[in-house]
Amino acid sequence: MQEIERKFLVVSEDFKNEAFKNFRIKQGFLNTHPERTVRLRITGDKAFLTIKGKSSKNGLSRFEWEKEIDIDEAEALFELCEPGIIEKTRYLVKAGDFVFEIDEFYGENEGLKVAEIELNKETDTFEKPQWLGREVTGEIKYYNSQLSKKPYKNW
Amino acid sequence: MQEIERKFLVVSEDFKNEAFKNFRIKQGFLNTHPERTVRLRITGDKAFLTIKGKSSKNGLSRFEWEKEIDIDEAEALFELCEPGIIEKTRYLVKAGDFVFEIDEFYGENEGLKVAEIELNKETDTFEKPQWLGREVTGEIKYYNSQLSKKPYKNW
Repeated sequence: MQEIERKFLVVSEDFKNEAFKNFRIKQGFLNTHPERTVRLRITGDKAFLTIKGKSSKNGLSRFEWEKEIDIDEAEALFELCEPGIIEKTRYLVKAGDFVFEIDEFYGENEGLKVAEIELNKETDTFEKPQWLGREVTGEIKYYNSQLSKKPYKNW
Repeated sequence: MQEIERKFLVVSEDFKNEAFKNFRIKQGFLNTHPERTVRLRITGDKAFLTIKGKSSKNGLSRFEWEKEIDIDEAEALFELCEPGIIEKTRYLVKAGDFVFEIDEFYGENEGLKVAEIELNKETDTFEKPQWLGREVTGEIKYYNSQLSKKPYKNW
């Protein structure tokens, strides 16, 4: 599957009042190479292994494969991950037909908040809320795979 | 699961007469790091994703996690693999209660033949057939993950 995602910085906390859901995410990487990222994630009581290819030239689409795995197996696999496990809370905010996913990071990435919106096609438009800042789609340093190696506090 | 495996070179073709089965394997790697190898494999009409941790100090045991995946998805994931897809024929030969897996490599690894035996515990013994050569257990250059990067013909 190709996913089309746009990513933005977040300039205020106001999104929290608009969120219809939030949950904690723990994730690690078995590879952080931008052409073959292998991500392990526990979100709530479910675990997933996700493989992503490289971004298209405009940074908007990226091959993604995901499979749910056993949560105990995921915990064992975390032991193998590269240093730099990421912990964050994800907030979901409706935006017309789409949903913003806003990640508030902890630990080494404390202070960073990033909003992502998944579109159906590259030309889809959506309303920009007040709390949405500069677009950072395709900027590799904002990839979670990179945040685990070069966290926000060291920028 | 921990796997206990011993690996040997193969000094003749005689194993082929003793094999009760053989099949073709195509495999690639989404990570070749010895502490977190991520392997994609198609064998016959099945596909698997396998994650291996680092070897124990004596090289005999290694954490391994494996999941069957859809074969079409596997073909798509091959596009993301590191350069150096490995193709080989695997022969199975009985050795008492155990089974030797002998891999005959093609392409860049033409000429290399390696036999592996999976044991239940590190102290298990087995009879060594005539065609079995020097033990190479734990020698990283014989890992398939390394053969894909530094193939036999360049040794």
